[in-house]
Amino acid sequence: MQIWKDYQEKNKDKFLNELLELLRIPSVSARSEHKKDMQACAEALKTRLQEAGADKVEIYPTAGHPVVYGEKIIDPSKPTVLVYGHYDVQPADPLNLWHSGPFEPVIKDGKIYARGACDDKGQVYMHVKAFETMSKTNTLATNIKFLIEGEEEVGSPNLATFVKENKALLKSDVILISDTALISLDTPSMDVGVRGLSYIEVEVTGPNRDLHSGVYGGAVANPITILAKMIASLHDENNHITIPGFYDDVVEASAAERKLMAEAPFSEEEYKKDLGVNELWGEKGFTTNERTGIRPTLELNGIWGGYIGEGAKTVLPSKAYAKISCRLVPNQTSDKITEILINHLKKIAPPYIQIKAELHHGGEPYMTPIDSNGYKAAAKAIETTFGKQPIPVRGGGSIPICALFEKELGVKIIFMGFGLDSDNLHSPNEKYDLANYYKGIETIPYFHKYFAEQ
Amino acid sequence: MQIWKDYQEKNKDKFLNELLELLRIPSVSARSEHKKDMQACAEALKTRLQEAGADKVEIYPTAGHPVVYGEKIIDPSKPTVLVYGHYDVQPADPLNLWHSGPFEPVIKDGKIYARGACDDKGQVYMHVKAFETMSKTNTLATNIKFLIEGEEEVGSPNLATFVKENKALLKSDVILISDTALISLDTPSMDVGVRGLSYIEVEVTGPNRDLHSGVYGGAVANPITILAKMIASLHDENNHITIPGFYDDVVEASAAERKLMAEAPFSEEEYKKDLGVNELWGEKGFTTNERTGIRPTLELNGIWGGYIGEGAKTVLPSKAYAKISCRLVPNQTSDKITEILINHLKKIAPPYIQIKAELHHGGEPYMTPIDSNGYKAAAKAIETTFGKQPIPVRGGGSIPICALFEKELGVKIIFMGFGLDSDNLHSPNEKYDLANYYKGIETIPYFHKYFAEQ
Repeated sequence: MQIWKDYQEKNKDKFLNELLELLRIPSVSARSEHKKDMQACAEALKTRLQEAGADKVEIYPTAGHPVVYGEKIIDPSKPTVLVYGHYDVQPADPLNLWHSGPFEPVIKDGKIYARGACDDKGQVYMHVKAFETMSKTNTLATNIKFLIEGEEEVGSPNLATFVKENKALLKSDVILISDTALISLDTPSMDVGVRGLSYIEVEVTGPNRDLHSGVYGGAVANPITILAKMIASLHDENNHITIPGFYDDVVEASAAERKLMAEAPFSEEEYKKDLGVNELWGEKGFTTNERTGIRPTLELNGIWGGYIGEGAKTVLPSKAYAKISCRLVPNQTSDKITEILINHLKKIAPPYIQIKAELHHGGEPYMTPIDSNGYKAAAKAIETTFGKQPIPVRGGGSIPICALFEKELGVKIIFMGFGLDSDNLHSPNEKYDLANYYKGIETIPYFHKYFAEQ
Repeated sequence: MQIWKDYQEKNKDKFLNELLELLRIPSVSARSEHKKDMQACAEALKTRLQEAGADKVEIYPTAGHPVVYGEKIIDPSKPTVLVYGHYDVQPADPLNLWHSGPFEPVIKDGKIYARGACDDKGQVYMHVKAFETMSKTNTLATNIKFLIEGEEEVGSPNLATFVKENKALLKSDVILISDTALISLDTPSMDVGVRGLSYIEVEVTGPNRDLHSGVYGGAVANPITILAKMIASLHDENNHITIPGFYDDVVEASAAERKLMAEAPFSEEEYKKDLGVNELWGEKGFTTNERTGIRPTLELNGIWGGYIGEGAKTVLPSKAYAKISCRLVPNQTSDKITEILINHLKKIAPPYIQIKAELHHGGEPYMTPIDSNGYKAAAKAIETTFGKQPIPVRGGGSIPICALFEKELGVKIIFMGFGLDSDNLHSPNEKYDLANYYKGIETIPYFHKYFAEQ
């Protein structure tokens, strides 16, 4: 539509500058010291939604960080699209590995570098600007609702309550999310599933205080050594997870789906080169795409204990800690896997040490069918602007709230992501390509148009 | 000797206050930000040695922290005692576990709480005050030399050069060190050996950057998992160290020595209760005292990698690190064990990751005979003030410079320590009992007297 193109071309710089402003707010949900930044970020989004044309925008407090809600109802008889996204970001550490400040966005080689550039401020803001495009040109074909939360990166602990208490407010015909990736601008793809998550923290205590490793070493269990032995035992020689019952509920992907996955363009050599590794690692019997898509995993996200400063300290520490998370596939459930994992760790803990293991957060896996109206509208929108049909793929990440959305609101979720796997999500130097940002803004209005036409 | 007793009784408070002043200087050798404190501590010791009666005191610069040297030569034909000690201390972390500031000494229940209270400022200062006692009462029976270094806690990297270049200055008939422990004031003991040390740091690199654990987890080796597997493999199910060649040079203790060790008072129940553990851990076939005395060990002193802050971050980290140290017994050598350890780690490192392993510092084990003039003088001194013969024991800790002292200076080293194993050396809330401090000051002059009489 020429009218959209013209509006977007004219406002290109404004679309970018507004995003950069949003990226300057360090809205790290995991850190209590950023509480004020979270509020500031919610306020900024409220203003932008109002300017874009929303009739009603509210900041709803929760037990944690606030939810931003906005809507424009053009005609109650028309279909309603609920756009979900999040304004919170992952912590930026390790800071020393960033080439520029995580909250001082810079543009280099056509890419925006900042924490949240892609995940998810950049992607959620495409929807605000696509909405503005339709609203300012009087071409909005659907009702539109925005639900932008501030706790996605910490497992959405308060969103379920908000959704349950506001079903009428959130009533819609489809939920549209841009928080996933494309294979590339040349090879568009759409996620048809996201994995679930169980994230726990483990504390192993040996002696009741830090000890001199010469005086006591060799006679008292070292909690680091014990924790290492426990961690080492969680994968066998084929990199299968050894926890009894872990795979019990896994729905194996069909031969047809695995065949389709194998056809997606993938170069193991390029993948290894990009990551700087000589050999890939993973569960025997599965390809790389299968390992990150259709298989559950167990990863160490952090470990610490003893002296970790400069130089040497001959200490036998009292405690060692680890953060461990599992990605889950259909039909695994977060509660069950968390329980299995914690119980297993307690069971294998030797009598020399004490162990504490606690849930940080969890979320269920989610799959969306490829024959729904929403999926078809999104695929057609992508075909319109990319000139190619998107390939359906399974995403490796998690959007914990998806399963609950479908259960409570009774509608399907469509993942129309415009990021790239190489965007350094959750890592130093997160980036978002300007080309992907603008491509998203260009594509999204077609989704609304095609969804309304069905 | 009544004259000593009187002098010490009269100066009791002064002896304590001067030590507290010394403890207020945060002389942490491992941390470059304490360079000025190291110099200040050396200056303070210089002043105190001069006040105590030394004829000559010098601060010698080294490539690292300075060495403090002091002497009083009463008669070149009399025997000379070289007192060795160190004014540097271990880092104080974890700070949150201290009940009072590590460099704000407090006295509670008859104990001085501060970093370095026992190791080694408290113990080295006993010698300064014992020297003052003899000097001010004109009863010094030997020549005395002080060599107080500032790098013991980082492996004495520059002391060997200093010793080799100053053999004439350091010429003596015996070296006396108080940097070890007694079983208790009721059961005096003397160390007849200290263990050697190999301290290394390991860096394991997986992918070239931190990754999103959902997008990449399961397909790329996690350096924490790999490091844990490597650490786990270093001890077998009997807690023997699995590194090929590790035990090759170990001189097994004789049945007679093991029998003698078994006779030293030791309550496993009290030991476990003091440490707060339900079960002890250690090499099969050896008792607790053997494990910490006559056997080599491998301990994890620190581990870190990934996200270690508050809350959750779903990262698959690029790197994981560990600090590992081995305690060595006769005739193991630090160079050989370090080489064996590093080569073994490189050999077992799987092809998915890169590994770097580097020496922090090392030191040789050392044994002293119980029939030397020095040992006999020390035993007699202890018998005089404790009313009991000391039990010879093997210490678990390390004083890296001992083997070099004997090689370069050609004299035996005597360990006359007054600390307790429960002094929380290298740990939060390090302490030194006032009773032990004063007992040391009382006992040391007898050593000089008896050594001169031989």
